[in-house]
Amino acid sequence: MIQPNHQLSPDRYFDPDPTVRRIARELYETVATLPLVCPHGHVDPRLLADEDATLGSPADLFILPDHYVLRMLYSQGIAMEAMGIAPLDGGLAETDHRKIWQLFADHFYLFRATPTGLWINDELQTIFGLTEPLNGKTAQPIYDQIADRLAAPEFRPRRLFEQFNVEVLCTTDAATDTLAHHQAIHASGWDGNILPTFRPDNLINLDSANWAQNIATLGDVSGIDVHNYVSFVQALEQRRAFFKQMGAVATDHGAQTPYTGELAPQAAETIFQQALSGAISADDAARFTGHMLIEMARMSIEDGLVMQLHPGSLRNHNARFITRFGRDRGDDIPVQTEYTRNLQPLLSKYGNDPRLTLILFTLDETTYSRELAPLAGHYPSLKLGPPWWFFDSYNGMQRFFEGVMETAGLYNTAGFNDDTRAFASIPARHDLWRRASANWLAGLVARHIVRAEDAGEMILDLAYRLPKRAYRLE
Amino acid sequence: MIQPNHQLSPDRYFDPDPTVRRIARELYETVATLPLVCPHGHVDPRLLADEDATLGSPADLFILPDHYVLRMLYSQGIAMEAMGIAPLDGGLAETDHRKIWQLFADHFYLFRATPTGLWINDELQTIFGLTEPLNGKTAQPIYDQIADRLAAPEFRPRRLFEQFNVEVLCTTDAATDTLAHHQAIHASGWDGNILPTFRPDNLINLDSANWAQNIATLGDVSGIDVHNYVSFVQALEQRRAFFKQMGAVATDHGAQTPYTGELAPQAAETIFQQALSGAISADDAARFTGHMLIEMARMSIEDGLVMQLHPGSLRNHNARFITRFGRDRGDDIPVQTEYTRNLQPLLSKYGNDPRLTLILFTLDETTYSRELAPLAGHYPSLKLGPPWWFFDSYNGMQRFFEGVMETAGLYNTAGFNDDTRAFASIPARHDLWRRASANWLAGLVARHIVRAEDAGEMILDLAYRLPKRAYRLE
Amino acid sequence: MIQPNHQLSPDRYFDPDPTVRRIARELYETVATLPLVCPHGHVDPRLLADEDATLGSPADLFILPDHYVLRMLYSQGIAMEAMGIAPLDGGLAETDHRKIWQLFADHFYLFRATPTGLWINDELQTIFGLTEPLNGKTAQPIYDQIADRLAAPEFRPRRLFEQFNVEVLCTTDAATDTLAHHQAIHASGWDGNILPTFRPDNLINLDSANWAQNIATLGDVSGIDVHNYVSFVQALEQRRAFFKQMGAVATDHGAQTPYTGELAPQAAETIFQQALSGAISADDAARFTGHMLIEMARMSIEDGLVMQLHPGSLRNHNARFITRFGRDRGDDIPVQTEYTRNLQPLLSKYGNDPRLTLILFTLDETTYSRELAPLAGHYPSLKLGPPWWFFDSYNGMQRFFEGVMETAGLYNTAGFNDDTRAFASIPARHDLWRRASANWLAGLVARHIVRAEDAGEMILDLAYRLPKRAYRLE
Repeated sequence: MIQPNHQLSPDRYFDPDPTVRRIARELYETVATLPLVCPHGHVDPRLLADEDATLGSPADLFILPDHYVLRMLYSQGIAMEAMGIAPLDGGLAETDHRKIWQLFADHFYLFRATPTGLWINDELQTIFGLTEPLNGKTAQPIYDQIADRLAAPEFRPRRLFEQFNVEVLCTTDAATDTLAHHQAIHASGWDGNILPTFRPDNLINLDSANWAQNIATLGDVSGIDVHNYVSFVQALEQRRAFFKQMGAVATDHGAQTPYTGELAPQAAETIFQQALSGAISADDAARFTGHMLIEMARMSIEDGLVMQLHPGSLRNHNARFITRFGRDRGDDIPVQTEYTRNLQPLLSKYGNDPRLTLILFTLDETTYSRELAPLAGHYPSLKLGPPWWFFDSYNGMQRFFEGVMETAGLYNTAGFNDDTRAFASIPARHDLWRRASANWLAGLVARHIVRAEDAGEMILDLAYRLPKRAYRLE
Repeated sequence: MIQPNHQLSPDRYFDPDPTVRRIARELYETVATLPLVCPHGHVDPRLLADEDATLGSPADLFILPDHYVLRMLYSQGIAMEAMGIAPLDGGLAETDHRKIWQLFADHFYLFRATPTGLWINDELQTIFGLTEPLNGKTAQPIYDQIADRLAAPEFRPRRLFEQFNVEVLCTTDAATDTLAHHQAIHASGWDGNILPTFRPDNLINLDSANWAQNIATLGDVSGIDVHNYVSFVQALEQRRAFFKQMGAVATDHGAQTPYTGELAPQAAETIFQQALSGAISADDAARFTGHMLIEMARMSIEDGLVMQLHPGSLRNHNARFITRFGRDRGDDIPVQTEYTRNLQPLLSKYGNDPRLTLILFTLDETTYSRELAPLAGHYPSLKLGPPWWFFDSYNGMQRFFEGVMETAGLYNTAGFNDDTRAFASIPARHDLWRRASANWLAGLVARHIVRAEDAGEMILDLAYRLPKRAYRLE
Repeated sequence: MIQPNHQLSPDRYFDPDPTVRRIARELYETVATLPLVCPHGHVDPRLLADEDATLGSPADLFILPDHYVLRMLYSQGIAMEAMGIAPLDGGLAETDHRKIWQLFADHFYLFRATPTGLWINDELQTIFGLTEPLNGKTAQPIYDQIADRLAAPEFRPRRLFEQFNVEVLCTTDAATDTLAHHQAIHASGWDGNILPTFRPDNLINLDSANWAQNIATLGDVSGIDVHNYVSFVQALEQRRAFFKQMGAVATDHGAQTPYTGELAPQAAETIFQQALSGAISADDAARFTGHMLIEMARMSIEDGLVMQLHPGSLRNHNARFITRFGRDRGDDIPVQTEYTRNLQPLLSKYGNDPRLTLILFTLDETTYSRELAPLAGHYPSLKLGPPWWFFDSYNGMQRFFEGVMETAGLYNTAGFNDDTRAFASIPARHDLWRRASANWLAGLVARHIVRAEDAGEMILDLAYRLPKRAYRLE
């Protein structure tokens, strides 16, 4: 009969075929304990700026900040308030973290076969030493055990960072950020390698919420009076220089589409003035963003910051939900995305320049084999980021390997990044990637598509060397 | 050497890996004989209204009503007339069912590796006890054996329904249908659970063929004089109430796109009046349908009928073919479909209301991971129907499991429905789904992604519990 | 431990599962040495017209003409000049083929897990008897060994053609080509079966580079004064007749989209006159091409030439690169492609006529299951070509089998064609297809989806019979 298996298997995620499994295990073992390279993510630097910061309660750690968890529970009819998320109108929300945890544990079966379920099971066992399955019955004892451990000094974020063997962790920071937490980390003398990343979305997207205020802040932090397009560009260059001085290796750009297109200086100025006057059309805002992405490529060629672009999400899909709970609560939904034509202006102008590294992400997997792999297999400046967001998953990785690698070639990809704000999930995410990578390579070796000695190099590339090279962290 | 295998294997559709196969078999055996839940399909209720109805000849059963069979033979240059389909112009068609059967058997090799081939082989063996492969040589003896059995009392549709162990069968019925066959079934005292489903396409699509006549019929059957938008809505509500009283649990909506968008009452009235006057533009018809889908969601919240939506088919692609043989003869071809933006108006308004269950289908598999799974993983009202039509197949199911489950979660899906008009194929279709489900889960267990005890629950969900829950049949 | 494996395995590309592998091997062995049918490709007929032609140096054979090789090296920052490609401005390029070969070998690791890597490894071993892996250290000895063999008489193209066991090889030739090389082959008395293919793109696409000159050439070679639409059509018909007389069995059409739409004769004439006067809009050119595709289908019905259509590539994406090195240097990038609506005019008119065979290719894999398989499963005239270009690969073939076969049926596909200009890669490409086909079928047999005896027929179809039937080469 089928037996329950409560402990993480050392062969988890590997194909059951004995030949593939044996090769996968051998490949995986060569990289299992390599340092973690985390060139893109959303960990709050505050956690690491304060030596005495803690991770809070089990609900603080696993539920409240994790959109993946909240969205799944919400999709099954559980009220946000019951999960501790208060509505904007001042309505009440559950504040007892034990009750929130119980609700989560009662419904943990919803996460069967999902990446969130895999990560959480991995964290419970690997970080907290818990092998009992989480469910309604085990909820409270497990809460106690996690809470106990979180209170211990070795569970302070800096200690976990060291225990996780993170070699470098890049955060994502608004272009107007003073990087006070990064400065505090530097000043503290702690040697954890935490780097900022320059994200100017809410400046270059002229129809961002609070754009005028963001421009005012940009003026304040840069010391440049941003009154026209030229001074706007100067201020951005000033911030990039500051970020670089603070250790940044990359910029990061979200956009609904990857549209790029150059504007004449006067056209850019006209649109910018309209934005300053508060009268900007959606169309002009999109044209300006498309122009600024090309400008950002130019600046990257000049200052060497790697440029990341991840389009394709329609933000804030659910109007009633947003009105009640605010933005960015798990209702961003992907849309079809076109890269070949949209990126042509940028790539034709700067894509042949090896000083530029442009790393692309997608939420539209149809573009892997049709557009992204052919583009990356031609343009020297282009590299493909790992399967992103919903595709940071076992099947998502398989589809990425199978859809991208034959045409782009492994060496036009950028390895893994965890893209997480859930600090404690970092090792589980990298482990899933390393196991999936080893398993993919093992399948190629078993089919005699790749030589075993080559696979031994490729697993090192996937697990460690590619992101260091792509993000210029070597 | 390779040996021919004429008998259905008990391990059919399972992965050949011994570990996966063993687990798949164990999981499958727990659900193999569970009752069949059939919440969406096109079986003619007349078959079950008349105690003495028969299934006709082997050609009546397997060929003449099955578009899957006709289209494949036609695609290989076989004339529709030779398959017994007469042209509209009064031309002749073959009437000898033995000759039609022979033609089919001669070309049965065309169905190798297709779902139609698998279903027919399963039916021949499981229902008719035939293990010889069907081909030109075996055609006539097999015809005789099937014809013999079809003449026997135990092959009457009601007896097969009982033998198939169908717990509930929902038909699909025009909103204007009097449900006479359903009434006859009730009146007969037979306890087979046959439920109607409310399908108003040819009323809410203002450019339907014979729309004016359909509106007249709506007035007749509802007793409401349909002369404007308000009375139109009232008449629809009356019909929904009647269908519900007759046991309906769901409505069903086909549409070329999933466009939704609310119209102001006056705008709806204006368009409706234009339709009544016979002057409706394609654009206004589409806007009206998009408005009525939102209205249907409102009514579902009020009356509790589950709402099904399956867009994406361009009907009647082949103009010459339609002119010759009429509509709906197997030339509907899918088109690219966009859900994220199209459904936003409906979902933003009603998608947070747990009283609404909206079950979505697609013919565009690119939307599984990009749009449908993210939407279903957020909105409480949304569930995803099974792989539909051409994707009701071994590979179609695998792509569905792999593309949907990680992001939507199993519990935001609605299990299987056979969607068939081929009554005798129902068990074969559910068996393929149950085997494919068991095989998917076995792969997850063997990879240590899902615990064995969880897989034991999940197979029950996939085979039986999810459709009962989604369609409120509990 | 993992052992290096430098020799091609006899089980390469087969699944590691022992059951699948055994069946795959048995199936493969029945077709491994069948003659190669090559109905679509770009081998230069000059190679075979001259009995004494040679394949040149190792760099001439493997690097200089192969866009797959050049693009991958360029994408990693290697200058085209270093690979021997001179810029148009008269700049210098490397001319020492040993140095170019060394550069290639130094970077051969970039081709790990790519089809180009597989083909080259296969050629090195199968044609040249080399089992050492190619890398920077082995580059020069391998160069010597290849160069030695290329100098031998048995490595003349005609001898290789015979050794490769090519039954028929179709080239691709401009509609205005005099087919002088084909005439020379005929005149030589050599019995290699080399057939031309009629490709009129640069005549029917009115905005082709040098269109006016092409029309002048058309007039010269056809002997028809092409001064209006009617004489244009006559001249095309004349060329088709000439190609057919020279053995052609097919026409070939590239287009950015598969748009078709009929023009009234006067509208066609008006557009054609505009083109003659040098004033043609992109929109009118597209309409004219869409009209001419329907005309080409009409001519195919009349003269029996099979019609091939492969849309979906945005040619010459990289403006700076083209300016420097000219067109067609590996920067064509696929775009999303729509078939259902675009082909409706052509198919509704001629798709029911079995005298027409239209073979479709795609670079947009999303259309396999959504559009192409449903269309091919209905229209008698339609067949699907094999996975094309970037998808002529191990994973590309798997996705093709899994996405197409269930709905289209095997017998609505056209088998394999290598579509190569790299003459020496022909056997390796067919071998990959035959192995992938055997492996797909073995998986179906092992899952009891296809009977073993049926698989024995299907492998013959895939490897040999389908292309002969589809291209009317029987």
